[in-house]
Amino acid sequence: MCNYTVGTNSYIDDSSEIGSGTVIRNNVIIENNVKLGKDVYVDNNAVIKSGTVLGDGCRIGTGCLLNESPFIVDAGKKLQIGNSAIIRSGTVIYGNSRIGDYFQTGHNVTIRENTHMGDNVSVGTYSDVQGYCEIGDYVRMHSNVHVGQKTIIEGFNWIYPFVCFTNDPTPPSEVCVGARICKYAVVATGSVVLPGVIVSEDSLIAAGAIVNKDVDKYCIVAGNPAKVIGDVRNIKNRETGLSNYPWRYYFDRNMPWESVGFEEWEKSNRRCMNTGDND
Amino acid sequence: MCNYTVGTNSYIDDSSEIGSGTVIRNNVIIENNVKLGKDVYVDNNAVIKSGTVLGDGCRIGTGCLLNESPFIVDAGKKLQIGNSAIIRSGTVIYGNSRIGDYFQTGHNVTIRENTHMGDNVSVGTYSDVQGYCEIGDYVRMHSNVHVGQKTIIEGFNWIYPFVCFTNDPTPPSEVCVGARICKYAVVATGSVVLPGVIVSEDSLIAAGAIVNKDVDKYCIVAGNPAKVIGDVRNIKNRETGLSNYPWRYYFDRNMPWESVGFEEWEKSNRRCMNTGDND
Amino acid sequence: MCNYTVGTNSYIDDSSEIGSGTVIRNNVIIENNVKLGKDVYVDNNAVIKSGTVLGDGCRIGTGCLLNESPFIVDAGKKLQIGNSAIIRSGTVIYGNSRIGDYFQTGHNVTIRENTHMGDNVSVGTYSDVQGYCEIGDYVRMHSNVHVGQKTIIEGFNWIYPFVCFTNDPTPPSEVCVGARICKYAVVATGSVVLPGVIVSEDSLIAAGAIVNKDVDKYCIVAGNPAKVIGDVRNIKNRETGLSNYPWRYYFDRNMPWESVGFEEWEKSNRRCMNTGDND
Repeated sequence: MCNYTVGTNSYIDDSSEIGSGTVIRNNVIIENNVKLGKDVYVDNNAVIKSGTVLGDGCRIGTGCLLNESPFIVDAGKKLQIGNSAIIRSGTVIYGNSRIGDYFQTGHNVTIRENTHMGDNVSVGTYSDVQGYCEIGDYVRMHSNVHVGQKTIIEGFNWIYPFVCFTNDPTPPSEVCVGARICKYAVVATGSVVLPGVIVSEDSLIAAGAIVNKDVDKYCIVAGNPAKVIGDVRNIKNRETGLSNYPWRYYFDRNMPWESVGFEEWEKSNRRCMNTGDND
Repeated sequence: MCNYTVGTNSYIDDSSEIGSGTVIRNNVIIENNVKLGKDVYVDNNAVIKSGTVLGDGCRIGTGCLLNESPFIVDAGKKLQIGNSAIIRSGTVIYGNSRIGDYFQTGHNVTIRENTHMGDNVSVGTYSDVQGYCEIGDYVRMHSNVHVGQKTIIEGFNWIYPFVCFTNDPTPPSEVCVGARICKYAVVATGSVVLPGVIVSEDSLIAAGAIVNKDVDKYCIVAGNPAKVIGDVRNIKNRETGLSNYPWRYYFDRNMPWESVGFEEWEKSNRRCMNTGDND
Repeated sequence: MCNYTVGTNSYIDDSSEIGSGTVIRNNVIIENNVKLGKDVYVDNNAVIKSGTVLGDGCRIGTGCLLNESPFIVDAGKKLQIGNSAIIRSGTVIYGNSRIGDYFQTGHNVTIRENTHMGDNVSVGTYSDVQGYCEIGDYVRMHSNVHVGQKTIIEGFNWIYPFVCFTNDPTPPSEVCVGARICKYAVVATGSVVLPGVIVSEDSLIAAGAIVNKDVDKYCIVAGNPAKVIGDVRNIKNRETGLSNYPWRYYFDRNMPWESVGFEEWEKSNRRCMNTGDND
């Protein structure tokens, strides 16, 4: 009946359901009404709070803290994470969030409440998602990314270390307008995107840019304050002399169009959607 | 007699005093000569070292480490925190510091030794206060703020993510001159304040500014290196067309002048002080 | 025979060797094939994974995680750290790395796999070394330094908070070219060094510089993008009027030339090497 493994000094509340093949290591705390899928691995000292639901094959690192709501009574809170997540040590995820499949975090990540994430999202070490954010599929955030409340990151975005998305145009104030990062846009190291700024599809924000105006499709912006310095389609690889952008046509590692190419993948996607729409 | 609650695997030294109504969860370590007030809550895996004094109603998150002095023998060290603190998971606070009431931290904050903080200070996730700092009442630091040794932040300041206060004019050297952030000044995301710089009352440092000169009252500075680009009194809210600065006249959430207004509050404050001075 | 001390709830695998005088505190996990030197101190909640080798006198802080390889089966992995390391709480170090003597970290540092570090290296709080890096003797990184994969930091370098060394010239791509920071170069707060950039000996990168070109010997670069703004040999101390750079001639605290001076030390070093070469 109990076909899962538990180390020493761990506590699992009787009301929680643990899938078969799951391994719970030492000094783990699993509170009430938790549901773990099959073949989940929970490493030493992790704390999984009441109302957490994890899919099959998830791996929870040492000292992680799931469905945290520090010192706030919130009986109904729920944290739902899909299948095959890899959540590295020291990560804290608050409640009332829903995260898709193949989620990954680095170490010591913080993700606050009311955040929705699609599939294949990864959030790097020390990154800090402040809550009330919408993050689409295949968003890749590197280390130390700071995502202010109400930021929207549409999907297939690359966000590099020390990037900050802000939300208060006249701090401090009661206004909160997040930035919107449209599909396929790339935001390089150390740049700051100011409140309400729209970063359009396929654009590129250079390292250290302070972006206080909307960025058009294909534009490269750089500097403080950021100015348009070119078009991504003109960037050539220094060694090969070939184009690199829009990156979705030139890069496919771990993307859904891997080995097929973006165009083929998009076409077949469109076909699927049309069929679904019942033409 | 022992009217507090202790979870499993927790250790409390006999010489420590625990107030009534206090809850100590699992695997907590409370060393000798610790004094916890009433209704304190200490979450799983926290370590409270010898000489810590916490007021009533404090809440200490999972894995926090209080009165740390890593591997240094310092028999007399003491950490004193007032009433109603909320210290979130993974926070490390060193000894020989005194912190007022209503203190808050985010997750994984580090506060080094010999730091004094007033009341109602909050320090965001991953922020790093390097010690020997003076921080006044109602200072609000967001995530990832780095406060170099000997920085002075006078009070009622808003400090946004990735701000850094430096202290060595010719690194590396033996000179350490902290910045001074005067009352009501606002320091926006990703800016760097160089050693010894004085940021005057009611000024505003824009996002990404590299501030290498003193900033006058009411000035807005921006850019790398930072230059004066305007006067805060001329900033209007984009939607309402009304003024926003000096912010103390336009913003009152959780401020001591909430619902009364800054002017009224200041007047009554002045009256109190005059009475105290025995006119 | 067992002349070391172990606290409560700690687990030490029988195959591991623990040196005499070593102190293991509470709830520590020491997996198989670990080798700890004499007089090692392992604080509460630390986890030392299979294949870790620590020299004499090392001090491992609360909740550290050594030889981590999250959820990857890697039977042969090894982490070797020399004598007298001080590794502060919450630090995570991956396997397949070799680190010299007198290593120090701040709190919550992350050091990824396949990294080599010389002696007397220190890595500040929240710093993030991404792996596959070469870091020479006496490199001092302050808090929040981000070191991209394949970065080379030659030795005797000072790296200040929020500095980022990047490695992908056209992100995202399969290209990874780290920066090279040559001996004695200083990189100030919040600067970004772009992929493949060479920062020459004795140069100085000013706070907030975005460095997209190689930096010559003795140059000071500043701004976004960074430009040469002077020669380090012309910088005078504001108070004394004396020179400060190249710093190796003016600063010696904790350096191998302490009290002797750089020139004497270098001469005697050269003599030793010549003797070693069998003249």
